[in-house]
Amino acid sequence: MSRHQPSPTASSTDTGFATRSKEFRPSPVRAVFETALDPSVVSLAGGNPDLSTLPEGSVAQLASSLLSERGPEILQYGSGAGIDGLRELVVELMARRGSSIGSGEVQPLAGSQVGLDLVTKLYCNPGDVILAEDPTYVGALGVFGSYEVQVRHVNIDQDGLDPEAVAHAIDAARAQGHRVPFVYTVPTHQNPTGVTLSPERRRALVEVCAARGVMIIEDDPYGLLDFERTTGPVATLHSMAPEHVIHLGSASKIFSPGLRVGWAVAPAHVRARMQIAAEAVLVHPSVLSQELVVTWLGSPQWTTVLDRSVEFYRERAQATTAALQEHLGDRAEWTDPKGGFFTWVRFPGVELGDILNRGIQEGVLIVPGAACYADGRSSDAVRVAYSGVSPYRVAEGIRRLARAVPAR
Amino acid sequence: MSRHQPSPTASSTDTGFATRSKEFRPSPVRAVFETALDPSVVSLAGGNPDLSTLPEGSVAQLASSLLSERGPEILQYGSGAGIDGLRELVVELMARRGSSIGSGEVQPLAGSQVGLDLVTKLYCNPGDVILAEDPTYVGALGVFGSYEVQVRHVNIDQDGLDPEAVAHAIDAARAQGHRVPFVYTVPTHQNPTGVTLSPERRRALVEVCAARGVMIIEDDPYGLLDFERTTGPVATLHSMAPEHVIHLGSASKIFSPGLRVGWAVAPAHVRARMQIAAEAVLVHPSVLSQELVVTWLGSPQWTTVLDRSVEFYRERAQATTAALQEHLGDRAEWTDPKGGFFTWVRFPGVELGDILNRGIQEGVLIVPGAACYADGRSSDAVRVAYSGVSPYRVAEGIRRLARAVPAR
Repeated sequence: MSRHQPSPTASSTDTGFATRSKEFRPSPVRAVFETALDPSVVSLAGGNPDLSTLPEGSVAQLASSLLSERGPEILQYGSGAGIDGLRELVVELMARRGSSIGSGEVQPLAGSQVGLDLVTKLYCNPGDVILAEDPTYVGALGVFGSYEVQVRHVNIDQDGLDPEAVAHAIDAARAQGHRVPFVYTVPTHQNPTGVTLSPERRRALVEVCAARGVMIIEDDPYGLLDFERTTGPVATLHSMAPEHVIHLGSASKIFSPGLRVGWAVAPAHVRARMQIAAEAVLVHPSVLSQELVVTWLGSPQWTTVLDRSVEFYRERAQATTAALQEHLGDRAEWTDPKGGFFTWVRFPGVELGDILNRGIQEGVLIVPGAACYADGRSSDAVRVAYSGVSPYRVAEGIRRLARAVPAR
Repeated sequence: MSRHQPSPTASSTDTGFATRSKEFRPSPVRAVFETALDPSVVSLAGGNPDLSTLPEGSVAQLASSLLSERGPEILQYGSGAGIDGLRELVVELMARRGSSIGSGEVQPLAGSQVGLDLVTKLYCNPGDVILAEDPTYVGALGVFGSYEVQVRHVNIDQDGLDPEAVAHAIDAARAQGHRVPFVYTVPTHQNPTGVTLSPERRRALVEVCAARGVMIIEDDPYGLLDFERTTGPVATLHSMAPEHVIHLGSASKIFSPGLRVGWAVAPAHVRARMQIAAEAVLVHPSVLSQELVVTWLGSPQWTTVLDRSVEFYRERAQATTAALQEHLGDRAEWTDPKGGFFTWVRFPGVELGDILNRGIQEGVLIVPGAACYADGRSSDAVRVAYSGVSPYRVAEGIRRLARAVPAR
């Protein structure tokens, strides 16, 4: 596309990059973004929310009203502290999850991904060790890499992270002379496995970390997406030790990812530092995006629409496990998600090879398990995101996946 | 606001911050954001664009159409490369400024501020030296600080940066063993002084930097805001050496800052790295914001509205210099901007002290000159932003400023 040929000095310019720049790697999910738009391919790669439940024209109407009534204010510079309405909304959302906070503990952001960047910038020196699940969210690894942080993976099972293994890993890293600023976890409907940390382990995990002065970064985009709606949403780690947990929340999975609205909930003195760091990067999040989130999530329609979406996700999760049983029952093991967007599918004893491109050849996109590890280890697993695809298409995608997986 | 008292462990948590975090300082412009909203205060602090020229309801109508027609696409995840329309728009905007590029050299961002963060992340190790104008954009200093980069200020006069002084500063820093990854400059209608780099010096500056393998970061939010509309917009530094310049552009001053849309123009191999770094922070910029920018800047109304805004800025600049002459003619010197948002006012021989708070007491907000230096040196100057205030209010603000400035 460029009309300029690289000049002879391009290579000398290359050497001008910072040391950390060699750690910049594209997210495999983002790298296949264009492929995922091909309608002949079933994309089980990106964790896209279903937007079909949004009543047609509803967001257009909200945007039109907001801009008609308060256009000059919404289009002008906003506050780095975010809009009051969003901070108050997050106070309410956190109350549903057992966290009692004030609006001074809420930092609105342009998506929770930038929250990950900011906590790493705020807490981590190059060479520090942080702990994450085995496997972990692929998009977090790009952030940690860009700050030259060493990620150590800690075992999880069907009940999530093992707190004793966390304690052991912290103590071992410190014994080796490393700082361990935080444990990064997606405790509820985890990305990529779909498992949820049990209540007992939540308590144990916050005790382990609080006793050692290690912060917990609770990445929580899926917390309101429980398939079992009778039990109520899962209580946050934050609710158990608000001084030791930075909670990252997002409107992406409960309304719209395109608008880029998320938030951090942190002790007031940490939030104040986050605001300074956030302003240096963002100035502030889009005011229009914040206003749309506040208006939609504050409307009586929202929970009805969300319930319908969650029902869709539940059906899709069921379609996934049914198709896995049908097409891969004898070759694979998988997690059984109780909420969220993902199933983790293992193929014990199978060398998956370049499963991403094998899948693309068969017409299905998945995230290779290897992408969910900082050290590029091989993996016998793939992440299946069923959230954005109809049950029929999910089943077709799994059928194609079965063709793409090599024989044992 | 917080209902939680800091726990006894809050101070030990404090020690968990990264080394770089001690360099996080609030921008003085952002810190007084709330004060600037007080209608009894004349704010000459923030560089706010005038939005009164936007036809009422026009943006509401655009948003409504976009979301009615393509809601599910706009609200869903977007590409980290930005939307095609924005990249093509930037190709056109750059052509007006003498830069011939392809869309593969354009990286859309959530404002150009994040571009500053990304280039610093990409190019600078802690302890590196970068050069910037004396004085420089206050918001850039927060970014450079957060990456522990040493900023050295290079003299400017009415024709902008002195290229010989830049050459000398690069060579001197290297002789001391420092890397010098880039020169940061706002060459056109500079923030905070309003001066513009002359054509001769532009050529000399790119020669100096290209010969030394030092990149130029050309921060250019004001490039289309010339008061002398007959001469046409100023050619970019980028147009003179596209392999050696990263150009940062923004929709904030020519449409809306609240939407947070900006872009970087860089050699294709650098842009590709910027996308990876940008995705780790932002995932992507708000799709709705990008679409609104493309639609508005692509509409035939845009240039008419922009011309009217520039006429307002010109009147306000004139009101500023007239009021300075009237109230401070015997005590101050000031620059005579030919475009953009700012005048730099010096008070030779005056100890300004805490001019920010003295100004607030008199009912006027300005940015103290000291804020525009990385080393916290004292300054005998203030930045006056006339862009967002009527000529009458500008004059009143300068009258109040005259009361706030101590006698010689």
